[in-house]
Amino acid sequence: MSQRFKLTLEYDGGPFVGWQRQDNGHSVQAAVEDAVHAFSGERVVVHCAGRTDAGVHAVAQVAHFDLERSTRPDTVRDAVNHHLKPQPVAVIAAEEVDSDFHARFSARERSYLYRIVNRRAPLVLDAGRAWWVPKQLDAEAMAAAAQRLLGRHDFTSFRASECQADSPVKTLDRLEVVREGETIEIYAAARSFLHHQVRNIAGTLKQIGHGRWAPEEISAILETRDRSAAGETAPPEGLYLIGVSYE
Amino acid sequence: MSQRFKLTLEYDGGPFVGWQRQDNGHSVQAAVEDAVHAFSGERVVVHCAGRTDAGVHAVAQVAHFDLERSTRPDTVRDAVNHHLKPQPVAVIAAEEVDSDFHARFSARERSYLYRIVNRRAPLVLDAGRAWWVPKQLDAEAMAAAAQRLLGRHDFTSFRASECQADSPVKTLDRLEVVREGETIEIYAAARSFLHHQVRNIAGTLKQIGHGRWAPEEISAILETRDRSAAGETAPPEGLYLIGVSYE
Repeated sequence: MSQRFKLTLEYDGGPFVGWQRQDNGHSVQAAVEDAVHAFSGERVVVHCAGRTDAGVHAVAQVAHFDLERSTRPDTVRDAVNHHLKPQPVAVIAAEEVDSDFHARFSARERSYLYRIVNRRAPLVLDAGRAWWVPKQLDAEAMAAAAQRLLGRHDFTSFRASECQADSPVKTLDRLEVVREGETIEIYAAARSFLHHQVRNIAGTLKQIGHGRWAPEEISAILETRDRSAAGETAPPEGLYLIGVSYE
Repeated sequence: MSQRFKLTLEYDGGPFVGWQRQDNGHSVQAAVEDAVHAFSGERVVVHCAGRTDAGVHAVAQVAHFDLERSTRPDTVRDAVNHHLKPQPVAVIAAEEVDSDFHARFSARERSYLYRIVNRRAPLVLDAGRAWWVPKQLDAEAMAAAAQRLLGRHDFTSFRASECQADSPVKTLDRLEVVREGETIEIYAAARSFLHHQVRNIAGTLKQIGHGRWAPEEISAILETRDRSAAGETAPPEGLYLIGVSYE
């Protein structure tokens, strides 16, 4: 009988084509699957909770896979980490879970952070780790607008055209905008998200921060159900998958 | 009459041989001096508050230089930043100061942060930005030991052999150890420091965190006035110059 492992993963999305295995470049999924193979000799499929796009980071992606040969979770963590080097991916934790656990289908909530650095000087230590916005942003206006997106809505205005979700209706449990010095952090949590939903919301909030729209106008943008009514798609380097919760 | 400018600089120390111009590689000083020359046509010497070593970062290094041609501070900031690209150095702020201001000699206090990430998994997003210590550290023991180094002492035990300071006696105004999750931050502030003083203290506190010495034994190490009695020199990638204050 095989053993199922739950992994918590951190990665720098910069050098990857995204989570999912693709023909056109190196994916996080391939990196992890190859590392599992290198230590165990087993070819596995690693399933994740949220398939991040190219350039998007994770501090706590969750994934699972099965091994035939009995292995201790700490051995899995250390051996996969050994074989992942020098790629910017690491297993933060590995634990054994029941065979009915599924990283994607058992997930109850995903949490994302979108980081903006709002200053005149180009990014140095945050380069590739945040969206650089040189022009002054009004974080209070952004926070007021964010409040209006909470709850259950048709999020078509914030949905990528490639999105494969059955329905554009999602429930946003959390959408907070916090300014700390020159950094603006946008926290979003929901059971699930549409493709590019967080980045499209971040891009729209940024334009509200610049005064293109008043905070209350975001409600009209939402009701239009038209992607072209909302703001730009914020770049991937500001986005982090920060947590996935299970029952 | 020339104009004096005070710069606040952020840099990633990783690719540099340190602040100071050297024959054996690219320095932060050379990067800034060359950028000033590229926009102004003037060859200047840029003086800093604290000459950081190879690999050491800064979020708020302070420096000054003089220009003959009258220039607005915002122009200095933006033009130097333009010419610094794509090097990981940026001018956060530029202001005009009196001709008796000296980044190094007018400084009243320097503040440093030493970052440790204490976890089993290799560093990913913090790679090159912290000291990776996989084995569990007792941050409370480290904090208790740190208290004993506060004040005016002969710091010979924590002084690099290459140190050129006139005296090994320094006054440590602040030495705090703060744990936040897997990150341990060591904050140090003093009017001035000996060469490698913060890194030698960090390396010693790390060994106290591992139980090699009890916290109170740091007093005996200090009193020995012998570098070999203290711990290792912590690596440069964990160290940040975070502030310089002036009267």
